Amino acid sequence: MREADRPAEPLGDRRVTSPANPAVKRIRSLAQRKYRDLTGQFMAEGLRVVTEACDLGVPLRLLAYAAEEADHPVVARLREACRAAGGEGLAVTRPILEKLSRKDNPQSVVGVFDQAWAALDAIDPTDDFCWVALEGIKDPGNLGTILRTADGVGAAGVILLGATCDPYSPEAVRGSMGAVFSRRIARADPDGLVAWCRRHGAHLVGSAPHGAIDYRAAAYRRPLVLLMGNEQSGLPAPLQRACDTLVSLPMRGTADSLNLSVATAVLLYEALGNREGRPVWPG
Amino acid sequence: MREADRPAEPLGDRRVTSPANPAVKRIRSLAQRKYRDLTGQFMAEGLRVVTEACDLGVPLRLLAYAAEEADHPVVARLREACRAAGGEGLAVTRPILEKLSRKDNPQSVVGVFDQAWAALDAIDPTDDFCWVALEGIKDPGNLGTILRTADGVGAAGVILLGATCDPYSPEAVRGSMGAVFSRRIARADPDGLVAWCRRHGAHLVGSAPHGAIDYRAAAYRRPLVLLMGNEQSGLPAPLQRACDTLVSLPMRGTADSLNLSVATAVLLYEALGNREGRPVWPG
Repeated sequence: MREADRPAEPLGDRRVTSPANPAVKRIRSLAQRKYRDLTGQFMAEGLRVVTEACDLGVPLRLLAYAAEEADHPVVARLREACRAAGGEGLAVTRPILEKLSRKDNPQSVVGVFDQAWAALDAIDPTDDFCWVALEGIKDPGNLGTILRTADGVGAAGVILLGATCDPYSPEAVRGSMGAVFSRRIARADPDGLVAWCRRHGAHLVGSAPHGAIDYRAAAYRRPLVLLMGNEQSGLPAPLQRACDTLVSLPMRGTADSLNLSVATAVLLYEALGNREGRPVWPG
Repeated sequence: MREADRPAEPLGDRRVTSPANPAVKRIRSLAQRKYRDLTGQFMAEGLRVVTEACDLGVPLRLLAYAAEEADHPVVARLREACRAAGGEGLAVTRPILEKLSRKDNPQSVVGVFDQAWAALDAIDPTDDFCWVALEGIKDPGNLGTILRTADGVGAAGVILLGATCDPYSPEAVRGSMGAVFSRRIARADPDGLVAWCRRHGAHLVGSAPHGAIDYRAAAYRRPLVLLMGNEQSGLPAPLQRACDTLVSLPMRGTADSLNLSVATAVLLYEALGNREGRPVWPG
């Protein structure tokens, strides 16, 4: 048995000192969409996010941590959770951890989890306040931020339409601040989404620069599906036509649009106010 | 005269084919804060943003464009604007332009402009709807997005407090989508900001996780200064105490905070509604 692979007491985690270790290479490969698609897995960095995932009952498939922090109480708890889930613990060197972690500020743990795509047909939104549907979203930072905001307002999750960036990319996972675990994530084609909304009597509200009404004057009846278009081109005309309501945000300066995650947040918080009894305005 | 420096008719722009050309190196150096601070200049990429800057009357100090696009109508207009401002035109090769432009999607022009810091003491906010003050903001993407949203609601500009990221970094400029030109940008220390608010009777509204009131129930009296804290630590206690009003955003999921640019946008749009006559709620 090589030094590098010696079991570490008490949980039998492997010690890894070589960046060429296959498990280390496997984690690193998850920075690429190709390998995430192939394996159906993804990585999340940081004590806080990995702990949140475990607290939500998401099984930890692999946990890499700095060997010298094995006895840190939070790390020890995560090692135990990983073992309980049948996952693999890796006590790694600091340089390996820095390689695994893509942040400027390297994290003390990296966890690997299974992606959890929900099938739209298996989702009944009747009792949900809101879903966010995103057509062709391209920026993983925006997607992560939208997941985080969806969590903030208590929306059920996000439905991705068409060719979009990956919610399980490191950048999206990071931006979501744990919401990638707490929100549901589904994929659909545009027609499938519209049919699903009709079937469940969901209220499809789209955002468009010249939408029919000011977003403050709209009623956001639940179950609400808030539909946002791509960063550059916005919602395609057929999807705009499929909406029950099209809202627009007032632009009072020289700019003609907002950042996508910002526009989504303003609309989600408006819908939340509406849900909580705030009157529409102007009434 | 070397081929590389041959004047190109009709505007006398230099043709540059070497990446080692001093002007090219000067532009590239502006990706670093050190050189931006030294020169007081910054770069902006893209036909649309550079055109917007020129339309706002911001003098173009240097314009680099793909030589083969010299006669493109928008490029030609920018070359003329650059010449009229006494700036330097550079007809460059495609590979040089790709080096200058940091986007995945290289732009067809890069412009260099002077930074335009406003002195807080020279600003009278009496007739302004709103300013956004940001304490210790670290992420240039957030700063750019906040500038863009400030433009969206018609806020006058942004005041940076303490050690912050640079609004003139390529990432912030890009995220601002032109708002770095249309909004005013000032720097102050926290005490200076508070004194300035008192002097002008400005209403200082801060955001804090456990602020005194729900943001929807606050009145945003103008001139408003919306004060936001750093991404990780939020507003320091002394600044919270200096605020006339502290508001918080409802968090209805598992997350305990929002992305900074998202939280700022929700508050700015609330303040805009308030300004436009929407009643506070609950009243």
